[in-house]
Amino acid sequence: MTSEDTQRRLDSLTKPPGSLGRLEEVLLRYTGIRGLEPPRELRAAALIFCADHGVVEEGVSAWPSEVTRQMVLNFVSGGAAINVLCRHYGIVPRIVDMGVQGTAVAGALDRRIAEGTRNFARQPAMTAAQARQAIAVGRQLAMEAAREFDVVLCGEMGIGNTTAATALLCAYADLDPAEVTGAGAGLNEEGVRRKVEVIRKALAFHPSRERMEIAANFGGFEILAIAGAIEGAVEARIPVILDGFISTAAALVVNPEARWPVLYSHRSAEAGHRRMLDYLGARPLLDLDMRLGEGTGAALAVGILQAACRLYHDMATFEQASVSGKTVACAPRPDEERA
Amino acid sequence: MTSEDTQRRLDSLTKPPGSLGRLEEVLLRYTGIRGLEPPRELRAAALIFCADHGVVEEGVSAWPSEVTRQMVLNFVSGGAAINVLCRHYGIVPRIVDMGVQGTAVAGALDRRIAEGTRNFARQPAMTAAQARQAIAVGRQLAMEAAREFDVVLCGEMGIGNTTAATALLCAYADLDPAEVTGAGAGLNEEGVRRKVEVIRKALAFHPSRERMEIAANFGGFEILAIAGAIEGAVEARIPVILDGFISTAAALVVNPEARWPVLYSHRSAEAGHRRMLDYLGARPLLDLDMRLGEGTGAALAVGILQAACRLYHDMATFEQASVSGKTVACAPRPDEERA
Repeated sequence: MTSEDTQRRLDSLTKPPGSLGRLEEVLLRYTGIRGLEPPRELRAAALIFCADHGVVEEGVSAWPSEVTRQMVLNFVSGGAAINVLCRHYGIVPRIVDMGVQGTAVAGALDRRIAEGTRNFARQPAMTAAQARQAIAVGRQLAMEAAREFDVVLCGEMGIGNTTAATALLCAYADLDPAEVTGAGAGLNEEGVRRKVEVIRKALAFHPSRERMEIAANFGGFEILAIAGAIEGAVEARIPVILDGFISTAAALVVNPEARWPVLYSHRSAEAGHRRMLDYLGARPLLDLDMRLGEGTGAALAVGILQAACRLYHDMATFEQASVSGKTVACAPRPDEERA
Repeated sequence: MTSEDTQRRLDSLTKPPGSLGRLEEVLLRYTGIRGLEPPRELRAAALIFCADHGVVEEGVSAWPSEVTRQMVLNFVSGGAAINVLCRHYGIVPRIVDMGVQGTAVAGALDRRIAEGTRNFARQPAMTAAQARQAIAVGRQLAMEAAREFDVVLCGEMGIGNTTAATALLCAYADLDPAEVTGAGAGLNEEGVRRKVEVIRKALAFHPSRERMEIAANFGGFEILAIAGAIEGAVEARIPVILDGFISTAAALVVNPEARWPVLYSHRSAEAGHRRMLDYLGARPLLDLDMRLGEGTGAALAVGILQAACRLYHDMATFEQASVSGKTVACAPRPDEERA
C-alpha cells in the first residue's frame, strides 16, 4: 500500500479534490509512514514519560519539583488532562517513570534512570550512558506499541523541563536564550530573566555542539526517551505524534534523517516553540495556545486524525452517490424544472 | 451562571492556569453566551442550508448547478463528509432545502423560497421579501434547535455560492474582487479571472451599500438562512458555530451587534476567508486548509469543544489530587529520598 493508493481513494470521494486539506495530508502521511491503508478506527497509544530536572535548584520554575511526583500520581489515578483526553478519544495511556525524585512512583511503569537529572548549570545533566539508556527505553516502548497500535503519541511531565528544552533548542539551533525563553508553567518576568541567565551560562559552561553531547548536557530523561520513541517509530514504521515544546525538543535530538515518522500536533503558546518548529521546518496541525504538556495537544491531534480516518472510509464515492464530475453540462434537466 | 463561575472551575483544575488556551476561551464563551455551565456531553445540531445560485449561468463555477441537488441527495442518504462527521461526533444534522433547482429534494426539510436565486449579474439575486423569508427560516430553525441542543452549527451547499459570498464580502468591506476571489471548488486560473470580472461588474450594477439591499442583491437563500440562524441564536442565547467562507459571509449580513453568539470554527483555504475573518476581527479555532463547506470545519470545531467540555468536568482539582500550588517549598521530603 502506497500513498498513491490513498490519494486515489481520497479523489474518489464526494468532495472537490484536495478540499479536506490537511486531513488528506495526514492520511497520506499515515500511509507513507506505515505502509498501510488508514484504519477506520485508529488505535492510539500514549507514552507519557516523566522525570525530574536538577536545574530546578536554580529557581527556573514556578512550581517545586515535588509537583512532578504529584502529577504522575494524578496520571496514575486518571485525573489529569491527558487522562481525560485519552478516555475521550479511546487512546491507551502508558505512564513511564523515567526518573522522578524520590522512590519509584507506584502505578507507573518503572524505567527509572536516576532520581532526576543533575543540575546542568553545574555539571552535565546526565552521563552518556544514561542518555543512551533513556533513548533505549523510548525506543523499546515505541516498538512494542507498534505491534498493537496504529499511532503512538508522546507526552511528558517534568517540572523544569521547559528550561531543558530551551537549552537544547539554543544549543542545536545556535540561538540566544533571550530570544526563545518563555514563562513555562507560570514564571513571572523576573523568573524568566533568571531562567535566561541560567541557560545562557550553562550554554557557555557546556560548549560542545556535538549532537549526543548536547543531549546529555541539557536533556531530561523524558526528553531522551521521546527521542528514543522517534527512533523506534523509524524502526517499526509507525507515525509518532509529538506534543508541544518539550516533546518537539526530542526531534532536535534525533538524527535529522530519523524525523520522517514524526507528526507535529500543535503549536504551543510557549515562547520558543514557534522558533523550534521553524527550525525543524514543521507546520503543526493545531494552534490552540495550549501550554499544558502531558501529551494533551497530541491527543487532540489524534482526535482530528480519527475523524480523517472516518471520512476516508465512510464517505460515499462519486460513483456510489451518482454525483457529476466537473465540466458536466450545467443545464437542469427539463423534468427537474418546477411546474 | 456567569463566565466567572466557569473561570473559577477552570482555575481549580490540575493544570497551570490558562494552559488549556483556546479550549478555556471557548468554555468561557459558552457560558457567556448560554448563561449555563458547559455540559459534560455537548449536544450539537447541524443546520445544513442548501440552495442554487443563478449566477452560475455566468460560468463562475467548476461544477454544474445540478451538483447541488446531487449533493443534497448525498446528505439525505448519509454519504457526504458532513454526515460522516455528524455520526462521528454525535451531531444531529438537519438538511434544509432553501431553494434547489427543480422540485423539492425528497428527504430534506422543505423551506424552499424559489428554484435558486436569480443571476445577480443581471438583476438582484432575490427580492427584499425573499431575503426576509430566508432569514426567518434560519431564525426559526435555530430557535427550535436551542430547545434541545447546547450549540448549533451552520453549514451549506450551493454550487456558485463562493461567488455570492465573495460579492457580499466586497460589498460590505469595500474590497476589489481581484483581492479576494478564489478558486471555489476548483476553478482554473482563467475561471478565477472570469469570476472576478462577473463580480466586479455586478458590484457596479448594484451600487447600493445598504445592509439588507446588499444581502438581497448578492446573497443566496442558504446564506441568508444562516444569517437568520445567527439572529435566532441571539434570541435563544445559544452559541452558533459557523463553518468556512460561505457561512462566515452570513455574519457580514447581520447587524454587527448580533454577532456575539458566533464562534468561528476554521480558516478556509478559500482565498477571501482570511480577509473576511480579519474584517470581522475573528480568529477561528482551526486552520486546516479545508475548503469543502457543508459544515465540515464547524463539525471538527464541535469535536474540539466536546473535548473541552470533558476536560472541564472530568479533570481532578488541585484539592482532589493533592497537587501543590505554585511557590510551595521545593525540597523533597526526606522520606522520599532514595536509600
